[in-house]
Amino acid sequence: MAFRARLKVRFGDIDRAGIVYYPRFVHYFHVALEEFFGQELGVDYATVVQKHRLGFPTVHLEADFRHPLEYGDHIDVEVRVLKLGSTSITWGYTVYRAGVGTGMVVEGHNVTVCVNLDTFEKAPLPSRLKERLEAYRRRCREESEAVS
Amino acid sequence: MAFRARLKVRFGDIDRAGIVYYPRFVHYFHVALEEFFGQELGVDYATVVQKHRLGFPTVHLEADFRHPLEYGDHIDVEVRVLKLGSTSITWGYTVYRAGVGTGMVVEGHNVTVCVNLDTFEKAPLPSRLKERLEAYRRRCREESEAVS
Amino acid sequence: MAFRARLKVRFGDIDRAGIVYYPRFVHYFHVALEEFFGQELGVDYATVVQKHRLGFPTVHLEADFRHPLEYGDHIDVEVRVLKLGSTSITWGYTVYRAGVGTGMVVEGHNVTVCVNLDTFEKAPLPSRLKERLEAYRRRCREESEAVS
Amino acid sequence: MAFRARLKVRFGDIDRAGIVYYPRFVHYFHVALEEFFGQELGVDYATVVQKHRLGFPTVHLEADFRHPLEYGDHIDVEVRVLKLGSTSITWGYTVYRAGVGTGMVVEGHNVTVCVNLDTFEKAPLPSRLKERLEAYRRRCREESEAVS
Repeated sequence: MAFRARLKVRFGDIDRAGIVYYPRFVHYFHVALEEFFGQELGVDYATVVQKHRLGFPTVHLEADFRHPLEYGDHIDVEVRVLKLGSTSITWGYTVYRAGVGTGMVVEGHNVTVCVNLDTFEKAPLPSRLKERLEAYRRRCREESEAVS
Repeated sequence: MAFRARLKVRFGDIDRAGIVYYPRFVHYFHVALEEFFGQELGVDYATVVQKHRLGFPTVHLEADFRHPLEYGDHIDVEVRVLKLGSTSITWGYTVYRAGVGTGMVVEGHNVTVCVNLDTFEKAPLPSRLKERLEAYRRRCREESEAVS
Repeated sequence: MAFRARLKVRFGDIDRAGIVYYPRFVHYFHVALEEFFGQELGVDYATVVQKHRLGFPTVHLEADFRHPLEYGDHIDVEVRVLKLGSTSITWGYTVYRAGVGTGMVVEGHNVTVCVNLDTFEKAPLPSRLKERLEAYRRRCREESEAVS
Repeated sequence: MAFRARLKVRFGDIDRAGIVYYPRFVHYFHVALEEFFGQELGVDYATVVQKHRLGFPTVHLEADFRHPLEYGDHIDVEVRVLKLGSTSITWGYTVYRAGVGTGMVVEGHNVTVCVNLDTFEKAPLPSRLKERLEAYRRRCREESEAVS
């Protein structure tokens, strides 16, 4: 199974239209990514950033919003590794309303580039991190092939 | 000239990598859109939302991030109308660091759908709003053709 | 034991000084309050707001910040009911860094007034809610007396 | 006249109750403080933080909320220097709805401590900064005495 982070729509996430302020979804993507590092890869994003001094600024972002979310909704944000380069990673995010059959509400992906946070120069993905990401990507793909 | 909203990168907009937290750019897009309504179209977005009960939820978003922004940067967010449908609008945003020759830092666009905020059903763009958007789009295009 | 909500300091919660942007703590207070309703009182704050149309705007806030928090910190926000009036509630919040002996990092309280969200007029606390808050307050007090 | 920063309540500042999410006011205080440095003291807060490596973490905060704010409201945040110590500053904030006779909507103050951002040790206020703050405080006081 692909990794999913369970989040809750908060009182302050709502905008004047009464639904989740759409920039907030991009924050949800990031929070899910942070959870993915700690829970799935076994290394805290905080450690990567603060100890290894690596950052992953986004260079490209796309998202499709299918259904609005409301206050009180619980969501699952699925995180996938769509593509792995020497310094870049393409991440996929699928947001589901938890415990509801209606399925997917938002789908997006972004491309991050690994940089040295002291210089902001591109840096190769550390081999251990790359291996884990590669293994995760393979596992997700095999499972989805087995299902279909 | 296309409309530009001048914004400032705030102390709290910065993330742990020391640059603007990238979801924040999507907020900048929205703030620029709010300014565009009041200053360029002559109708406050608050009036459209609260009095006319129309909303413009985003159904699609794309952005390319060319250069990170830092605390203290002033930016100009240019807003364009790229496409007009009967209920949908495609908005273009180009973010420039103000007063600096390096030019563009972020480029994005989103597609919004006009809805009745009481029912969240699609609603046709009010004709007066559509005319103003059409006129703005035409004017921007003519000017850019005149330049080239 | 008083109710505690476990939260995580997020990448985007950090400011240009490299610590949690202090307005963010007030957001943490609110998130902890939302959790308190669902987990401790057994009624979702979303239900209270959206179904019963009651709101709890803050009329007074105080907070003392003892230690800065950093990215990656996990925190426990303890929520207490300090005082109960016919329409007002005084809430106490104590933030602890989770799993660390250093103890308390932030301490605050706010006073909320119960209002009808359709009119924003003051409304008496529903008796069932008031009973549960009173029981919670009594229990916390008895436990703290038993300890000392 | 005391310094006032003009801000606008944004679409995304609103919470599920349809008014400004109250933690957002503390953000408004901070934005007004940033403006105060650049416009009134003549030194950008970004320069103080990034070049002089000084920070002003808040150790105490209080606020009273008199009237809710809605989307579309324009506000003036008045910034005052209430007290000056060797390392601490007590700042006063008064939020007015702009162009409306109803006057004050929120009133607050916070105490900041000057720290060296590389060590987070307390640092004496630079004498030039202290002089300007002292002059500003004196000027505000004299004007308010002249008025009364």
